[in-house]
Amino acid sequence: MKIGIIGLGRMGGNIARRIMRAGHETVVFDRNAPAVAALVADGAIGADSLEDMRDKLDAVAIYWVMLPAGDPTEQTIATIAGFAKPGDIVIDGGNTFYKDDIRRAKMLAEKGIHYVDVGTSGGVWGLERGFCMMVGGAKDAVDTVDPILAALAPGIGTIPRTPDRDGDKNDARAEQGYIHAGPAGSGHFVKMVHNGIEYGLMQAYAEGFDILKGKSSEKLPEEERFDLNLTDIAEVWRRGSVISSWLLDLSAAALAKDQMLDAFSGSVADSGEGHWTIEAAMEEAVPVNVLSAALFARYRSRVDHTFGDKLLSAMRFGFGGHVEMPQ
Amino acid sequence: MKIGIIGLGRMGGNIARRIMRAGHETVVFDRNAPAVAALVADGAIGADSLEDMRDKLDAVAIYWVMLPAGDPTEQTIATIAGFAKPGDIVIDGGNTFYKDDIRRAKMLAEKGIHYVDVGTSGGVWGLERGFCMMVGGAKDAVDTVDPILAALAPGIGTIPRTPDRDGDKNDARAEQGYIHAGPAGSGHFVKMVHNGIEYGLMQAYAEGFDILKGKSSEKLPEEERFDLNLTDIAEVWRRGSVISSWLLDLSAAALAKDQMLDAFSGSVADSGEGHWTIEAAMEEAVPVNVLSAALFARYRSRVDHTFGDKLLSAMRFGFGGHVEMPQ
Amino acid sequence: MKIGIIGLGRMGGNIARRIMRAGHETVVFDRNAPAVAALVADGAIGADSLEDMRDKLDAVAIYWVMLPAGDPTEQTIATIAGFAKPGDIVIDGGNTFYKDDIRRAKMLAEKGIHYVDVGTSGGVWGLERGFCMMVGGAKDAVDTVDPILAALAPGIGTIPRTPDRDGDKNDARAEQGYIHAGPAGSGHFVKMVHNGIEYGLMQAYAEGFDILKGKSSEKLPEEERFDLNLTDIAEVWRRGSVISSWLLDLSAAALAKDQMLDAFSGSVADSGEGHWTIEAAMEEAVPVNVLSAALFARYRSRVDHTFGDKLLSAMRFGFGGHVEMPQ
Amino acid sequence: MKIGIIGLGRMGGNIARRIMRAGHETVVFDRNAPAVAALVADGAIGADSLEDMRDKLDAVAIYWVMLPAGDPTEQTIATIAGFAKPGDIVIDGGNTFYKDDIRRAKMLAEKGIHYVDVGTSGGVWGLERGFCMMVGGAKDAVDTVDPILAALAPGIGTIPRTPDRDGDKNDARAEQGYIHAGPAGSGHFVKMVHNGIEYGLMQAYAEGFDILKGKSSEKLPEEERFDLNLTDIAEVWRRGSVISSWLLDLSAAALAKDQMLDAFSGSVADSGEGHWTIEAAMEEAVPVNVLSAALFARYRSRVDHTFGDKLLSAMRFGFGGHVEMPQ
Repeated sequence: MKIGIIGLGRMGGNIARRIMRAGHETVVFDRNAPAVAALVADGAIGADSLEDMRDKLDAVAIYWVMLPAGDPTEQTIATIAGFAKPGDIVIDGGNTFYKDDIRRAKMLAEKGIHYVDVGTSGGVWGLERGFCMMVGGAKDAVDTVDPILAALAPGIGTIPRTPDRDGDKNDARAEQGYIHAGPAGSGHFVKMVHNGIEYGLMQAYAEGFDILKGKSSEKLPEEERFDLNLTDIAEVWRRGSVISSWLLDLSAAALAKDQMLDAFSGSVADSGEGHWTIEAAMEEAVPVNVLSAALFARYRSRVDHTFGDKLLSAMRFGFGGHVEMPQ
Repeated sequence: MKIGIIGLGRMGGNIARRIMRAGHETVVFDRNAPAVAALVADGAIGADSLEDMRDKLDAVAIYWVMLPAGDPTEQTIATIAGFAKPGDIVIDGGNTFYKDDIRRAKMLAEKGIHYVDVGTSGGVWGLERGFCMMVGGAKDAVDTVDPILAALAPGIGTIPRTPDRDGDKNDARAEQGYIHAGPAGSGHFVKMVHNGIEYGLMQAYAEGFDILKGKSSEKLPEEERFDLNLTDIAEVWRRGSVISSWLLDLSAAALAKDQMLDAFSGSVADSGEGHWTIEAAMEEAVPVNVLSAALFARYRSRVDHTFGDKLLSAMRFGFGGHVEMPQ
Repeated sequence: MKIGIIGLGRMGGNIARRIMRAGHETVVFDRNAPAVAALVADGAIGADSLEDMRDKLDAVAIYWVMLPAGDPTEQTIATIAGFAKPGDIVIDGGNTFYKDDIRRAKMLAEKGIHYVDVGTSGGVWGLERGFCMMVGGAKDAVDTVDPILAALAPGIGTIPRTPDRDGDKNDARAEQGYIHAGPAGSGHFVKMVHNGIEYGLMQAYAEGFDILKGKSSEKLPEEERFDLNLTDIAEVWRRGSVISSWLLDLSAAALAKDQMLDAFSGSVADSGEGHWTIEAAMEEAVPVNVLSAALFARYRSRVDHTFGDKLLSAMRFGFGGHVEMPQ
Repeated sequence: MKIGIIGLGRMGGNIARRIMRAGHETVVFDRNAPAVAALVADGAIGADSLEDMRDKLDAVAIYWVMLPAGDPTEQTIATIAGFAKPGDIVIDGGNTFYKDDIRRAKMLAEKGIHYVDVGTSGGVWGLERGFCMMVGGAKDAVDTVDPILAALAPGIGTIPRTPDRDGDKNDARAEQGYIHAGPAGSGHFVKMVHNGIEYGLMQAYAEGFDILKGKSSEKLPEEERFDLNLTDIAEVWRRGSVISSWLLDLSAAALAKDQMLDAFSGSVADSGEGHWTIEAAMEEAVPVNVLSAALFARYRSRVDHTFGDKLLSAMRFGFGGHVEMPQ
């Protein structure tokens, strides 16, 4: 197959490479010319513009947009929509808010253009491990791009099969590492919840290691302290414990490099998915204390002191004469 | 009546004064001699030592210990226990952990000495407004010290009476601002939960004002900002709104003085009660997400970055190549 | 002044009455004819329709819409917009999402119609106590309706004045119980945060009383139990304690009536404000663990078991053979 | 080596078997005679009593106690302490609170008896996969029992090695699946935090799947619903995603069996470790919103309605006339 790929950053570039490794052709475009050149060196067909890409694709054109969510993706899809033909397929492989997918799919459908949203997990490791993909869109369109998805997916590999999977009820593709989740938007919805869970898992480890580290703190009486080797603890939990996971593997690797993690500032970003996950939960009236606490810990990590903290001190001063003022 | 008061800090001094205003006699002691002298100037009988206090009290001696919880209170009560006579009454008016009360009451009971724990709310305002008190101990001992408690309590004052209070089931003293909650330890237990609630209430206001303040933040697109007058908002909520409270009154006063609260550092202390409240909840298997979050917000306010935050960044770097390092 | 009031439910009816008590005229409409008749009996001018109301109002017509947020309010305002004249004022006194206010104000401004949003607190008590109001809109329009707002507000009453209020920086109306918060939407924004705080405060009390009640539970060893009188505890905290508040007054009244609260099911509704408050916090990246936990507790109160709980049991069975199945 | 094993439940029995498979001898005891007989059939030496076990062990006796934490473990260790000789080693392999370990180690040290605490993860899978162990105690004693620990551990197996592990700083045993964490109590401390993290991880998945499931709920407008296949989603996340883990493997298996999880009641137990983890965090003043929320979700899962929920309804009725009463 032949596929156009727009956006050749860390993710887009690796996606193009993995598709080519499987024997497909890619036409690639990025505003940053050297990124195009690098892919061309790896065998891709370069394009100077979206229109140039269109001219180099097949009669039924397939576009994979791999850009930051929001304006960059929105504008690129609008441009493609301007010249695409009925039957063409536009794939958004980024981190788009699923309600934007639903809106776009409806808009493109009026022109006979198919829209497929692909939530993609796997990060910088995807080129080698394959990408885990959650796909939304009409069945026909998803089936058309299936060879591309199959090429990107990790495949069954060495991961043990889940017992009791019933072939009749379930999608065989799941074992290959991708699923057709449902109509447009559902792919990004599932990916969004995936990221919400990711935040929760990460924060659970973070809090646990905080407690381990705090056990040597001088805040504690000397006889209550343990001086624990966090590197070894992360390592041992990888081996036979209930909490082994890929995130723990990454933690163990980071701690093995530097148990103090001094290279990291402690200011933690969040992309939109954590926020949207909480919104989705509220729309459904589902209680999500863990997922929200994980998100809020990141917000809190990015400020020195909240105004709210100062108000607490002001109240304490008001009722108790407690003084909590800067030195 | 005559009562010995040990510990003449902000709380102890005001307690002595309010007792004297009601016509009772106080014998006062503090390691800090000027504190004793100040009370003597206000009409108290000074004591040089605990033994001296004993000699100046009545045949049935009543001791009110008003010291920091933990060692200071523990040691003072141990000293009094060494010389007290059967029938004497030892009152702990501080912020003692209620399980310590239970232990001490048992220990003193073996010598015929009564132990009464008084959880005291009211802070620096108590001298004028009166102290709200939650009392634990044997009925006889509590009844004996009732005149002292009545003197300290705010009394019914101008606060409207609660409809439907049934005199047969309920303690008439509650309307005066003090209650006999139950056996030894129960007074401090109720006070402990009071403080746990206090943390929750304070944090609810703190978060709300954080949102109001954040609405003018440059993080938001300009057309989504409001520049709100927090001083006026706190004021208006005092008047007819569902969330009016004394803590809001204090917030309004602090904001009226300085809407930026720049005098406060934002590092917020916690005394033990919040922690103990969560422990009590866990012993009972009661979910307390609000009370715990309020406590943890104070812990978080006292550190720049947690180790856990760094671990989050380390994981993010591991799977996504995200760089969150100090500049 | 003369004002049209649409929606004569519990809130709307009392608003009309309080406005009339201050000597203003009201023209009232409700789909429910007996509600109109009841107000007419109290001195209002009845209207059969919105158009009829328009004909009975002054040259510069003022409409106060007091309907459920969402469709009812939206449609009513659309109807009024269809016939209103430049210079007319439309007030939304309900619980509208503030972004809807911003949109509507813009839409009405194109026709020269003014839009004022009034967040109103006070519930069923407003007729007697007055309503606490947070007002958004253009200065001129708000000033025009000031006599109505002043009539509805509680006034300074017996509530002590906040020290240090600086007349130059602050809005004198705040002490009367209403404020002009800013442009359209800001009134409902402040009211929304008010309700978010309200949820947090309520949940803090709820958790505290849960711990008090749980202390007599048979889950605890007998020697660790206290049998506490919750009615008296709520009462005593009203009197001189740090956590006294109007919500505590209401709790004390409910507990005085029935300490077991058996009349209540324990399924707790939420209106939109709690949800919107969390959304606003996320847009600002403000951590709000207490406000979110309070909202989620209500969600949780309305289901027997979550699917997530079952998944926990399924995992526990998977790794430990723990059996948590229905009997 | 020869080792005595007391407690032949699911964990104890498998531990004995795995030790024997490695060529060591076991002397086994359980109050339940058939459990002893089953192990004897597998090659163990049966004992009728603790004293009988002692007589059948070597000159330096090693006891592995694998009983429920609390009284059963406490009493058994007290009995062994009564007859053990200086140099003997008592291992507690259960889920003991680490402060009890510290106390016991001190008590046994006075008699020259060594105490080793082993936190053991691996559940019903340990026999085949090996047990992940976190060990506390004096270096000599831990080194003495090392062959037993090595036999129980999973070994390096097929799990990829962590890059950058520095042999000089780290314990080589960690890669085999066990560590010597520090002095007595530290093994159970690390295991306790492990379980605290486990709760957090589980709850993150639980909340995420709740949101996925809720997306088909009739609470949502029809056009906002997705009917998602949870079984396939769990499966696909196992393959190349950031949130792959053993707990997810178990979830996938459970969902593959029955996507509705109808076999599970939704009442979720907690053992002490979650509670103790929060206590440890509070002693260190470490904020743990995720770990506590995970624990509280389990508490909440076990009650129909909280008293606090009823109080919320009572307040709502008080200020707004909202009626939330049983039908």
